[in-house]
Amino acid sequence: LPLRAAVLTVSDTAAQDNSADQSGPTIRQSLSDRNVVIGENDHTIVGDDVEAIRGVIRDWTGREGDLKVDWIITTGGTGFGVRDVTPEAIAPLITRQAPGLVHLLISASLKHTPLAALSRPVAGTVGNTLITTLPGSVKAVKENLDALFTAGVIEHAVDLALRLIDENLESLP
Amino acid sequence: LPLRAAVLTVSDTAAQDNSADQSGPTIRQSLSDRNVVIGENDHTIVGDDVEAIRGVIRDWTGREGDLKVDWIITTGGTGFGVRDVTPEAIAPLITRQAPGLVHLLISASLKHTPLAALSRPVAGTVGNTLITTLPGSVKAVKENLDALFTAGVIEHAVDLALRLIDENLESLP
Amino acid sequence: LPLRAAVLTVSDTAAQDNSADQSGPTIRQSLSDRNVVIGENDHTIVGDDVEAIRGVIRDWTGREGDLKVDWIITTGGTGFGVRDVTPEAIAPLITRQAPGLVHLLISASLKHTPLAALSRPVAGTVGNTLITTLPGSVKAVKENLDALFTAGVIEHAVDLALRLIDENLESLP
Ligand code: NA
Repeated sequence: LPLRAAVLTVSDTAAQDNSADQSGPTIRQSLSDRNVVIGENDHTIVGDDVEAIRGVIRDWTGREGDLKVDWIITTGGTGFGVRDVTPEAIAPLITRQAPGLVHLLISASLKHTPLAALSRPVAGTVGNTLITTLPGSVKAVKENLDALFTAGVIEHAVDLALRLIDENLESLP
Repeated sequence: LPLRAAVLTVSDTAAQDNSADQSGPTIRQSLSDRNVVIGENDHTIVGDDVEAIRGVIRDWTGREGDLKVDWIITTGGTGFGVRDVTPEAIAPLITRQAPGLVHLLISASLKHTPLAALSRPVAGTVGNTLITTLPGSVKAVKENLDALFTAGVIEHAVDLALRLIDENLESLP
Repeated sequence: LPLRAAVLTVSDTAAQDNSADQSGPTIRQSLSDRNVVIGENDHTIVGDDVEAIRGVIRDWTGREGDLKVDWIITTGGTGFGVRDVTPEAIAPLITRQAPGLVHLLISASLKHTPLAALSRPVAGTVGNTLITTLPGSVKAVKENLDALFTAGVIEHAVDLALRLIDENLESLP
């Protein structure tokens, strides 16, 4: 079964003018290249608004059966900008924190620029959907996805979180 | 005074068949090699169950006098497996978070495999007992213990947390 | 407009004998060398006491207009010493967590000594004031400030948090 993902762009600017969203399409192309499926309606744009962000996350994490979303990726709103509220919107919804994924994302970005220290990612599961929050820039999005796809990290996380496979890291290559 | 530790294996499988526990004995051997004392009854196995885990932690952190435990090490239940609940069981009991130890554990594991990003360790003190949560695999346990014993990190943490020695990192080598 | 900072030394010893404070003056000299302004009354010393620490933070983050503080730096009380409570005092006041800055501080310190794993920094914003907590040793303070000033991380964070500049990491060098 292929991974099924959904992509949320968080940006006041892009919410007013969809054509301004560059990171959302970048993520969709990158996932498509890696054989991750994104349903026709499983990408959207909201402004930098806590309730708007939570509404989408609740909708996507509430899906069941064929429409179930394995992995939600957000882009934007994770910095120190006065409007940036994505971490504050999503953190309270997470039931299992993933500090290892947060570490991986920050560490991968810091290899490219010290300014990555200003990113404020959250990661973890809501029910059995994995959520990762990426920065808003196309460059940072690509770097973060490269890190997440290294050695099958995401596929393995989803297998464990959603598909009842027992964890046994020893059996892995 | 030698360090006094206790080891908790968290695993449904091992709880049913103690002989399936490989990481618990690995930790005990590793600590013994480093002159850390583990009392006769200070290692046990519980299933992946929040209340069972908390019961053991509360017992061990409630000890006083000669039976006092300086350091609790858990193994297992820190991944994304659907049954993994060790971080959720232990995090609410911690009174002083240790993000530096979490960083050290994740960073050390990431040097061996990107899949370490799926580990979800917690670390900190409950009263004046230090707690660290290690993954369930023998390989990861060894890597984590090597990192923790580097340059006396654990001994120093325990000295500071339990033995009323003033922190003065400058006076250290 | 130059950055405006305030420096809080947290130490029972220094609170009784101000001349024992070495890290506070080190920070002030280091900031002055980098053209960061510290107002005449914007540095002080308190003991390792949760309410005393919070009182100073609330005072400094409540400032407006010309007296507004962009960045609060604390030194001391972030270790495992039995009296160390700086993270516990400040964490509940933070409205936006900065895990990237925490990662940067720990990672930078770990390059110098594995004992940096015993540091327990917190970082984030209270209103639109940035707060970072540094260890108590002069050596660690210098290493942390070097890391924070790399590539303008702090200046950029403050610009974003306080001065309504839109985040666009892509437009940065
Ligand atoms: Na690192």
